Amino acid sequence: MNYKMITYLTAQIIRAVGILLLLPIIVAGVYGEVHELIAFAATGGGMVLLGTLLTLKKPKNNAVYTREGMAVVACAWLIISLLGALPYLFSGNIPNIADAIFETASGLTTTGSTILNDIEGMSKSCLFWRAFTHFIGGMGVLILMLAILPQSDTRTMHLVRAESAGPTAGKLVAKMSMSVRILYGIYIVLTTLETILLLCGGMPFFDAITTAFATAGTGGFSVKAGSIADYNSAYVDFIVTLFMALFSVNFTMYFLLLSRKFTQVFKNEELRTFAGICLTAIVLITISITDFYGSVLKALRYAGFQVLTIISTAGFATADYTEWPFFSQMILLLLMFVGGCAGSTGGGLKVMRIILLVKSAIKEIKTMFNPRSVVVVKCDGKAVDKEVVRGVCVYFVVFMFLLAGSALLLSLDGHDIPTTISAVITCMNNVGPGLNEVGPSGNFAGFSSWAKLLLSVDMLLGRLEIYPLLVLFTVRKK
Amino acid sequence: MNYKMITYLTAQIIRAVGILLLLPIIVAGVYGEVHELIAFAATGGGMVLLGTLLTLKKPKNNAVYTREGMAVVACAWLIISLLGALPYLFSGNIPNIADAIFETASGLTTTGSTILNDIEGMSKSCLFWRAFTHFIGGMGVLILMLAILPQSDTRTMHLVRAESAGPTAGKLVAKMSMSVRILYGIYIVLTTLETILLLCGGMPFFDAITTAFATAGTGGFSVKAGSIADYNSAYVDFIVTLFMALFSVNFTMYFLLLSRKFTQVFKNEELRTFAGICLTAIVLITISITDFYGSVLKALRYAGFQVLTIISTAGFATADYTEWPFFSQMILLLLMFVGGCAGSTGGGLKVMRIILLVKSAIKEIKTMFNPRSVVVVKCDGKAVDKEVVRGVCVYFVVFMFLLAGSALLLSLDGHDIPTTISAVITCMNNVGPGLNEVGPSGNFAGFSSWAKLLLSVDMLLGRLEIYPLLVLFTVRKK
Repeated sequence: MNYKMITYLTAQIIRAVGILLLLPIIVAGVYGEVHELIAFAATGGGMVLLGTLLTLKKPKNNAVYTREGMAVVACAWLIISLLGALPYLFSGNIPNIADAIFETASGLTTTGSTILNDIEGMSKSCLFWRAFTHFIGGMGVLILMLAILPQSDTRTMHLVRAESAGPTAGKLVAKMSMSVRILYGIYIVLTTLETILLLCGGMPFFDAITTAFATAGTGGFSVKAGSIADYNSAYVDFIVTLFMALFSVNFTMYFLLLSRKFTQVFKNEELRTFAGICLTAIVLITISITDFYGSVLKALRYAGFQVLTIISTAGFATADYTEWPFFSQMILLLLMFVGGCAGSTGGGLKVMRIILLVKSAIKEIKTMFNPRSVVVVKCDGKAVDKEVVRGVCVYFVVFMFLLAGSALLLSLDGHDIPTTISAVITCMNNVGPGLNEVGPSGNFAGFSSWAKLLLSVDMLLGRLEIYPLLVLFTVRKK
Repeated sequence: MNYKMITYLTAQIIRAVGILLLLPIIVAGVYGEVHELIAFAATGGGMVLLGTLLTLKKPKNNAVYTREGMAVVACAWLIISLLGALPYLFSGNIPNIADAIFETASGLTTTGSTILNDIEGMSKSCLFWRAFTHFIGGMGVLILMLAILPQSDTRTMHLVRAESAGPTAGKLVAKMSMSVRILYGIYIVLTTLETILLLCGGMPFFDAITTAFATAGTGGFSVKAGSIADYNSAYVDFIVTLFMALFSVNFTMYFLLLSRKFTQVFKNEELRTFAGICLTAIVLITISITDFYGSVLKALRYAGFQVLTIISTAGFATADYTEWPFFSQMILLLLMFVGGCAGSTGGGLKVMRIILLVKSAIKEIKTMFNPRSVVVVKCDGKAVDKEVVRGVCVYFVVFMFLLAGSALLLSLDGHDIPTTISAVITCMNNVGPGLNEVGPSGNFAGFSSWAKLLLSVDMLLGRLEIYPLLVLFTVRKK
């Protein structure tokens, strides 16, 4: 492995995030939070310094292969989860180290699980930093999808492929930075749009921008103890629901819309499946909870929000679904695994993987009963490479085994089975809330320190789609 | 599909089971249970008559391919689950149709989940029939493994392969009936041995033979309300534990032992893994529950029994593990998925599949980090065919998706999430008990009729390894 290049690139990312810390510094300044100002300035300054020192000399051998790319992603996410926890610690907002790391990892992985019992007791700048980590995490995921993990999925490379005719390395890099700019453009425009629409609903500016950050990354941290429910506004619920849906869509779709390729968007199989799953879930849950709320319209509002908050893996809350009928809870529990579309900021297995898993299951059954027939897994009318399908199946196996292993370890912490299993499910899928103790009205404060660190690793595993993190534990034989 | 041949073969199986009903008839006679005598005689007579009528004329076209084989297996298991329920209904021992079908399906699939609130209130002959369905189910599974599903697994065909040099169809069939005879010989000898050993422990003859039947099929129906715990004997616990282990082992091992190929048995990877998993689980649980029982020896006794009863998927009970620490419960919950070795009467995914799933995950990670390296999945030192590995991964996907779908449907019945999910897990893996309402001290009586039928289908899906049952729902295009 090219360790020098890994260090160089990781340092660049650390410096960039260090610069982004200017925003919470400004917030701390505006609200006159001196402790926080010092904490953010010290952390940000340190990160910029560290990043600059390590990037002074560009390595001569600048070859970066998949392995190195993965190592950079994993290192960057890990190190920033640790460094990003410092402001919480320094300012005394989160005095416990494991808590601070959990909260930062939860932010950067856009999970949104929290260990805070008193959210509103936190300083403004720290609340801003919480939401902002979601936004940074979302930006990270967009590049990750584009650059590092194209081989695991046919769709994520679309943007790049659409632009670069020949797959020559130089071109690809040049075009990629173009793609990244377009992606970030869409990301920032959507976030701004949500902020404005929330302001129109009478939400304070601070709340609007932090909510928009948390929606953009499909994170779910809110500045209110009762999450979005505290605004008690159907308009706010609707806007957040809408944007959770928009941020769960493959960003390629927006690129296609900008290029006026409307039919391609309309016919996109992943988008249609995502819409189909959302609508089916909303209808079923609305029927199931109408008695609970006494009105179809109210049931629809809460069903719509909760379905989108879970499938987008944002993890906001306007209702405590653990009080709903078990059928509704089970739907939400299964939606946690689905997640957003590939190439979005959503977590979970991704809709595209679910499509390929179902199709490969159908293919298996068809070929078993008609051994001479040739069945090919198709997506958007095109045959999907066998290796891709196989890779997705194995990914599912790896995911479920890691989930089982984590649940087993976590059970040592002595929480009941639904709490333990749902905590692992919600963390690995980067959703946020689970069931029982970690339900929408609960939090992760009850876990012990080592359990919080374990769950932080689960969040990172899920967010980075497992393999990049594993590369760090793999000893490479010369 | 060759429907005539499917009917012919299914009818043969129905007739054979009809003849086997002689045993409960004798039991009813011995205990002077007139109603039961009539019920069993009517059912058995009807089955023999039906079977004979449908097998009067052998179809000219006697070609049987995988598809037909699967259809026969599925039809036979389904029809016998329905017909086998009749004695319970006729005799009034189980007055509800769904209950009777559930209990019979649970018996034949060697699951051992029960809807009975008052087990000891049942007549002797019906108790005998319950246990005997396990024994019949176990016999069915042994042929199934040997004949129908060889392609899904490299090991199950060993017995046949060991004998037949060339894979010509005629030879295979001739040799297969030889293999079946050997298998049944081992099966009956082991069952007899367990009966004798239980008698030596002072267990009444009726209890000993029914317990042996239930162990042989790794079923788990007991004639006592408190299962094996009611005998309150460390000796009985030990014997049952031992035989649960013996019946979870690939029966090829016994064949190899008879052929004095001891090294092959000793070096067998699946057997070693199975032993390794059992020992690890027993040690971990013993540590976890020593405080609960106040003595290491007592903890070891209960840990050993419960680990074997779950991994063998027998589902007897000597302790209510839902009162144990959550770590122990989580281990047992995961062991439900493991199940016995391939080619045993145990259920679950089978140890061999777990091995292949883990190895294929490791292979994926290795090739991802060293794309140029060639990594092959090996078992017992030999490379496993790529298609087999792929098939196992897809099987896992199909299994988990059916599990999720069943859990979603079952949640409509309004039981809490752990009850619902564990009920589906325990039924699809043919274990028996689950958590909460369906824990070792609970039962399945609380589910509504449609839910019981759904769980019966789950048991059949698990027992027949899914595909055979699906063939019945597949419309074949000319």
